[in-house]
Amino acid sequence: MDLKTLRELLRNKQLSEIKNGLSVLQEADIAELLENIEVKESLLIFRLLPKEVAAEVFSYFDVERQSEISSLVSDKELADIINELNFDDKIDLIEEVPANLVNRILQHSTAVERRLINQFLNYPEDSAGSLMTIEFVGLKKEMTVNQAMDKIRRIGLDTETIYTSYVTGTKRTLEGIVSLKDLVLSEKDTIISSIMEKGVISVNTHDDQEYIAEVFKKYNFLSLPVVDNENRLVGIITIDDIVDVMEEETTEDFQRMAAIEPTEIEYLDASVLVLAKKRLPWLVILMFSAYLTEMVMDQNNYLIAQFALAIYTPMLMSTGGNAGAQSATLIIRSITLGDIKFPDFFRVLWKEIRVGLIVGSTLGVLNCIRIYFTDGNILKAGMVGLTLICTTTFAAIIGGTLPILAKKLKLDPAIMASPMITTIVDVTTLLIFFRVASLILA
Amino acid sequence: MDLKTLRELLRNKQLSEIKNGLSVLQEADIAELLENIEVKESLLIFRLLPKEVAAEVFSYFDVERQSEISSLVSDKELADIINELNFDDKIDLIEEVPANLVNRILQHSTAVERRLINQFLNYPEDSAGSLMTIEFVGLKKEMTVNQAMDKIRRIGLDTETIYTSYVTGTKRTLEGIVSLKDLVLSEKDTIISSIMEKGVISVNTHDDQEYIAEVFKKYNFLSLPVVDNENRLVGIITIDDIVDVMEEETTEDFQRMAAIEPTEIEYLDASVLVLAKKRLPWLVILMFSAYLTEMVMDQNNYLIAQFALAIYTPMLMSTGGNAGAQSATLIIRSITLGDIKFPDFFRVLWKEIRVGLIVGSTLGVLNCIRIYFTDGNILKAGMVGLTLICTTTFAAIIGGTLPILAKKLKLDPAIMASPMITTIVDVTTLLIFFRVASLILA
Repeated sequence: MDLKTLRELLRNKQLSEIKNGLSVLQEADIAELLENIEVKESLLIFRLLPKEVAAEVFSYFDVERQSEISSLVSDKELADIINELNFDDKIDLIEEVPANLVNRILQHSTAVERRLINQFLNYPEDSAGSLMTIEFVGLKKEMTVNQAMDKIRRIGLDTETIYTSYVTGTKRTLEGIVSLKDLVLSEKDTIISSIMEKGVISVNTHDDQEYIAEVFKKYNFLSLPVVDNENRLVGIITIDDIVDVMEEETTEDFQRMAAIEPTEIEYLDASVLVLAKKRLPWLVILMFSAYLTEMVMDQNNYLIAQFALAIYTPMLMSTGGNAGAQSATLIIRSITLGDIKFPDFFRVLWKEIRVGLIVGSTLGVLNCIRIYFTDGNILKAGMVGLTLICTTTFAAIIGGTLPILAKKLKLDPAIMASPMITTIVDVTTLLIFFRVASLILA
Repeated sequence: MDLKTLRELLRNKQLSEIKNGLSVLQEADIAELLENIEVKESLLIFRLLPKEVAAEVFSYFDVERQSEISSLVSDKELADIINELNFDDKIDLIEEVPANLVNRILQHSTAVERRLINQFLNYPEDSAGSLMTIEFVGLKKEMTVNQAMDKIRRIGLDTETIYTSYVTGTKRTLEGIVSLKDLVLSEKDTIISSIMEKGVISVNTHDDQEYIAEVFKKYNFLSLPVVDNENRLVGIITIDDIVDVMEEETTEDFQRMAAIEPTEIEYLDASVLVLAKKRLPWLVILMFSAYLTEMVMDQNNYLIAQFALAIYTPMLMSTGGNAGAQSATLIIRSITLGDIKFPDFFRVLWKEIRVGLIVGSTLGVLNCIRIYFTDGNILKAGMVGLTLICTTTFAAIIGGTLPILAKKLKLDPAIMASPMITTIVDVTTLLIFFRVASLILA
């Protein structure tokens, strides 16, 4: 069923046809359909869904639609949804909805769960603690395979992943993991500690999500145990949440590299004022930094006026800026992926010098020829060509090295991207150009 | 064991200490250590590893180290490694190593496997076919749970994931999936077709990897079946490969947005000539486009000379460019994430007009004040301020809408990023500035 059919059926009030049509769809697809119709209509259809399907569909809604639906349903209905939600989806919901809704949700949780929820809400945002779920299979190392399988059968249905079980010793310390595969393939009276894998990689509740994503990528894990400072097992993180983290982190990089203060709000949901506020700070800083270009231009006013040099400055600055931005982007991305580290500084520098010279010489020669044919002035053609070689090489060096230095100084390398590099290169381009000009023309 | 200890032990030829030290490490960590020492030494240590561990470590090596090791080992050793590798890792290796190595690898494969390998090598690069593995559990729908579990136990150890089994009907057509969880929780004589999940989402061998990544993200899958044009099951794709795809696609976006021809070669591995070749094409195009700025400057030469207007042009152009790049980045990223589609065109346009006016007015007023205090010329201050309001708003509109139009024209929206937007904004800024100047000063 597509959106058009759904709207058609809604108009004709053919609810049982809608129910049938939805029953063959995946929950993610139902959620997508319902997000695209009016809230009240979506609630009408939402109520037609079987209870478990409804909760699953609800977990796929974006926060806005979740809040809207939550505030429209009865307490009884809300309780049903909340009880069916996975613990980490519940936490996500509570973190995002308005305070009055939080209270209604907490009312429908048990005392134990309320305490847990409060504990989870205290973990720093973007930490392992705020990402993890408490729904996993925990086994004791003295158990037999038979006892373990019994436990998995008993609690299995509610946990997010039953394919890896986490084995704890005394005081709930994490001692190993055992896969469902190994359990299925082992004799029934085998003791868990004899088949579990030891030396398990785990993360701490306070580790940052970016670090956790790196661990997942490095080891190709599907899930990862989270421990507290005493190495006690408190939760697990599953790879589907990491996929979301990777997207968030990438979005943040893109924003920072475009001199925007990072925000997690989707563009269409963000107000005009919020969007303006995220863009202004860097624009103001960069604009005032560009005052330097005015000073350089002013000092060379005589040269500019006498030889009509101003006409070449926009092209020179933008070409230099583009070349610098290319280097910066390559290096920033390589730092993010862990391919370039501080000890590579001089290798990068030496590479950028050579790339800059090759690229700059090509651009310089091409432009030299072009100006000679349009202006017929061999001196100016040479001047512009020589400037291009110098600025492009300088831009490549600056773009290639500043991100590495920023990282070394514990700054986000992403701030050394196009806008910042361009501003630095602009001033330098003008300095080089007027220096070359005064040498050649004087 | 860290790199320093390893080097120390190597120097003292304490091989058994090395063997013990490595035995507690994860395969990914061993691979990382060995990649950081000399090839010959790494081979020495590689040979100390148990056979299964060695193959796993080998699969974590980068292509370069894989090729080096492969060319150094004996045919017997190579056969051992190759036989232990998962099928998809084998395909990856064959795709990357030199031709003489390919022949050696193929010699160590069975005839059936050679035919399969050839089939896989024919799938388009970046397609589902080239990403998938043939190692999965395939069940017949008439089987009982007991028969299914027997089959899983029999072949289980070699498959990459045994947690989802794929159920086929006549002619190997995909009819459903069944999880190990459901198998474990069902009665032994239940028929598979009665517990399998129908209406399975699958992808075609020729689907692009970017689309496949979207399917994984949308449905939170851990694996996904791949079918041919007759809906026959030919393989599966697992989420760990999708994580790599996501990174690749993001890197490509970053490169394209910085006007670099995309390349998968890591920066430090790429030659200077390759790096230069990837950067030059767009730099040349953008440089020649900037000829337009020369024409505009030339036409207003009289105005520039008489009132010394050139000094403000770098700041105006760079501020406009930055504002346009901010909008373009936000919109391109939103298009990539599926948050903004063509029907949102006018919402985006209207939003950017307002954001542009707010941001532009703030910048205009700030600069107006600054110039009044530094230059004391109220006319010039007003001129620059007014230009900033107009160019920033124009830049926001261009940056916000061009990526959406590019997408509509089936172009990659990423080409409408900073470099292209900046070039367009540069020319427009100059046109606006001289128009404003001639109105105010004339």
